[in-house]
Amino acid sequence: MTAPRTEGFGFRVVATVGYARAAVLTTPHAEVLTPTFMPVGTQGCVKGLTPDEVAETGARIVLGNTYHLMLRPGAEGVAEQGGLHGFSRWPHAMLTDSGGFQAFSLGASTLGKVGKAPLVKLDETGFTFKSHLDGSRHMLSPEEAVRIQALIGADIQMQLDVCPPGESSRPVVEEAVARTSRWAKRALAAPRPRQQALFGIIQGSCYADVRRAHADELASLEVDGKTFDGLALGGFSVGEAIPKMYETLHAMAHTVDPERPRYLMGVGTPRDLLEAIDAGVDMFDCVLPTRNARNGQALTRFGRVVVKQAQWKHDKRPIDPECGCACCLGGYSRAYLRHLYLAGEMTVLRLLSVHNLHWYGELVTSAREAIRGGTWPAHKSATLARIDAGE
Amino acid sequence: MTAPRTEGFGFRVVATVGYARAAVLTTPHAEVLTPTFMPVGTQGCVKGLTPDEVAETGARIVLGNTYHLMLRPGAEGVAEQGGLHGFSRWPHAMLTDSGGFQAFSLGASTLGKVGKAPLVKLDETGFTFKSHLDGSRHMLSPEEAVRIQALIGADIQMQLDVCPPGESSRPVVEEAVARTSRWAKRALAAPRPRQQALFGIIQGSCYADVRRAHADELASLEVDGKTFDGLALGGFSVGEAIPKMYETLHAMAHTVDPERPRYLMGVGTPRDLLEAIDAGVDMFDCVLPTRNARNGQALTRFGRVVVKQAQWKHDKRPIDPECGCACCLGGYSRAYLRHLYLAGEMTVLRLLSVHNLHWYGELVTSAREAIRGGTWPAHKSATLARIDAGE
Repeated sequence: MTAPRTEGFGFRVVATVGYARAAVLTTPHAEVLTPTFMPVGTQGCVKGLTPDEVAETGARIVLGNTYHLMLRPGAEGVAEQGGLHGFSRWPHAMLTDSGGFQAFSLGASTLGKVGKAPLVKLDETGFTFKSHLDGSRHMLSPEEAVRIQALIGADIQMQLDVCPPGESSRPVVEEAVARTSRWAKRALAAPRPRQQALFGIIQGSCYADVRRAHADELASLEVDGKTFDGLALGGFSVGEAIPKMYETLHAMAHTVDPERPRYLMGVGTPRDLLEAIDAGVDMFDCVLPTRNARNGQALTRFGRVVVKQAQWKHDKRPIDPECGCACCLGGYSRAYLRHLYLAGEMTVLRLLSVHNLHWYGELVTSAREAIRGGTWPAHKSATLARIDAGE
Repeated sequence: MTAPRTEGFGFRVVATVGYARAAVLTTPHAEVLTPTFMPVGTQGCVKGLTPDEVAETGARIVLGNTYHLMLRPGAEGVAEQGGLHGFSRWPHAMLTDSGGFQAFSLGASTLGKVGKAPLVKLDETGFTFKSHLDGSRHMLSPEEAVRIQALIGADIQMQLDVCPPGESSRPVVEEAVARTSRWAKRALAAPRPRQQALFGIIQGSCYADVRRAHADELASLEVDGKTFDGLALGGFSVGEAIPKMYETLHAMAHTVDPERPRYLMGVGTPRDLLEAIDAGVDMFDCVLPTRNARNGQALTRFGRVVVKQAQWKHDKRPIDPECGCACCLGGYSRAYLRHLYLAGEMTVLRLLSVHNLHWYGELVTSAREAIRGGTWPAHKSATLARIDAGE
C-alpha cells in the first residue's frame, strides 16, 4: 500500500533485512520513522513529562487510552479543548486504543470493591461496564469506540476487539477471533472523520495458524470501500510464556500484509522489541519504560540499574555514560539519583522516565539504521548480548 | 560594605526609594540581583524541578536545608560529590540554613511517634536531637553547623540561632537573643572556607526595640577580624499575627546595617514580599510557591487559582494569560491542568511549580525595576490592589 487509505495517511517500506523492515508512516500530525516506539500517555499525559521532553526522546507518536479519557474528562471534554492534541499540547502523531482492554481488566477489577456481579458484561453488542472511578455505567460497542475515538481525535484509531487470556484453549481463542472479525466489519462501517486512520486487530493467542488466518481475513476486509490502514497484533504479553510469544511472532508477523504497518500492542522489554522487529513488526507501545522509571528502575544498553541500591551510594557516574538523554548528559550521578529516590523526590521519576524513553527511542532508531544499512542481524545479536552481559 | 568580607563575595546597593532598595549581591557562583527570592531545595532538589527549570524562573540563588542533607545523604556524602553544586547540578548561588530550626521542629515532631522525651535537647552547647528518619542521635552546635555547611559547600552559610515561638514573652525572647549572640561569636570564630560567606541572624520576635538592638550588636560583631557578610531576620512567620510582622519589619528592617544584605527567612506570600521589600529587605526564601503548587494552587498577579475547582472544567485559558512561564506559554488550559490534577498526574505539580516560581521571580524583578525607576510606591500599591481584586 503506497496510496493512503485515509486522508493524510500513508506507509512506505524503505528497507528490509529478512523480515525486519524500516518504513515511513505518514500521519496528519507527523512523519513517523519505523520501527517506532509509542510512549504511553494514558490520561492525556506521558506520566511525569511534558510534550517537549517526550519529543526529545525521539518519539513522534504517543498512545492515549480511550477507556481513561472517556471516563475522565470525557470524550466530549477532550473534543471541546481541540481534541487530545489541543488538550495535551502534543503536536506530533497520536494513536488511541479502543478502550475494550481496560474496560475489561479495570472494570473487572472493581468487582471485589463494589461487590455486585457482573460489572463487565461482554456480548455480541460490546462491553457494558462500570467505571473504576465512580461506578457509573458505560458501554463500548465497535461503533461507539469509533465515535468516542473520533471525539478524542488521534491520528490513528483502534477497532474494538476481544482479547482472551494468555493461555486460553483453542475454542475460546477461536470464538474471540470470530467476534473480533465481526466487530472489525462494524468498526469499518461506522462513520469516522476522513483524516483518522483505523487499524484492525489480529487475535489468536499463541496459535500461529489461527493468527495467520485472522491476519489474512482482516487484510482482505473491505466495507463500503474502506479497509484497515494498519494491522495490529493484540493479545500478546497477557500471561503466556515469553518464548511462546517469540515463537508465534516469528511464525506469523511477516505474513501480515506487508503493505500496511504492523503494530504489536502493549509489548514490551528491549528484548521483546528486538525479537518483534526481527519478526517484521513496525510499531510498539508499552508502559514499561515509564512505569519502571517510577519504580526507580533505569533500563540501559547494559541491563537494569535499580537506583535505590546501596552500591551506588558513592557512585559519581551517570546511569549510562554512553547515553545522550537529559538525565545522563545533565551530569546527575547515580549517588544523587539514589538520594532523590530514597528522599521521595519526584524529580528523579522524571529523570528516569526521560532516560528510559530515550533508551527506547535509541533502541528503535538504531534498529532502523541497522536495517537500512543491512547490518541488522549482527546489530540485534550484539545489542542483546550487551543487555545480557550487564555493566 | 563594598569591599568583600569573604572571598568572591560582595554587596552593592544601586538604588533606593524610601527604605526599599535594589542591589547586587556577588557570590562565587552568581551575581544575584536583589530583591531576590530563593526557591527552596530542601533535600538538594527544588521539588519536582530540574536546575534548568529553576533558573528559567529567574532565580539565581536557591536554599538547601542543612538538617535534611546532614541526615540524608550526610554532609560527607554531599562533599564527596563535589558539594551541593556538583551533587544537585545547580550552577548558580546557594545558601544553606544552619539546620537548627528543623532540628527543633522536626526533631520535636518525632516526640509523639517514638514516645520518649526529650528528643530535642537545647542548651548552651547547641541542639542534641534524634533524626526524624531513623531516630539516630545528632548534635548541632554553632561550630558544628559551620563545619557541616562547609562540607555541603553553599556560597552562603547561616549561623546557628535560637528561634522562639511567635508569641513568646519578652524574657523568653531576650534569652533567645542573648544566646543567639553568643552563638554568633562562636560561629564567626569557627574555621570556614574562605569562599563561603556567613550571615548572622537577628531574633527578637515582634519586639522592635529588641530586634534593633540585636541588629546593631550583630552588625558590630568582629571575631578574629571576621564579620558577618549579611544579616538575616529570623523568627518571623512562626505563629505571630501577620500585621504585627509587618509593623515590626517597618519599624526595624531599615536599621539593619545598610552595607550588608538583609535576608528575611522563611517568608512568605507575595504580599509579605512586597511589604518586606518596602521595609528594606533584600532576600527571601519560602516553600510557599512550590508547596502550594503541589497542593494544586497557582499563585498569580490576580490572586490564587485552585486548579481542581469545577469552574475550570471547560476553561481554555492558561492560568495567567500575562505570564511568560513554560506552563502559561505552553498553552496548557485550566481545563487540562484540572484534569491532570484530578487524575493524579505529577506533571501538573511541575507545571504549577514552574508557574508559581516564575511569578515570584517576576514579583521581585519588577520590584527591582520599580525601585530603580523610582516608581516603587505606586508599583507596590498597584500590585497589591491587583492581587486583592482577583481576576
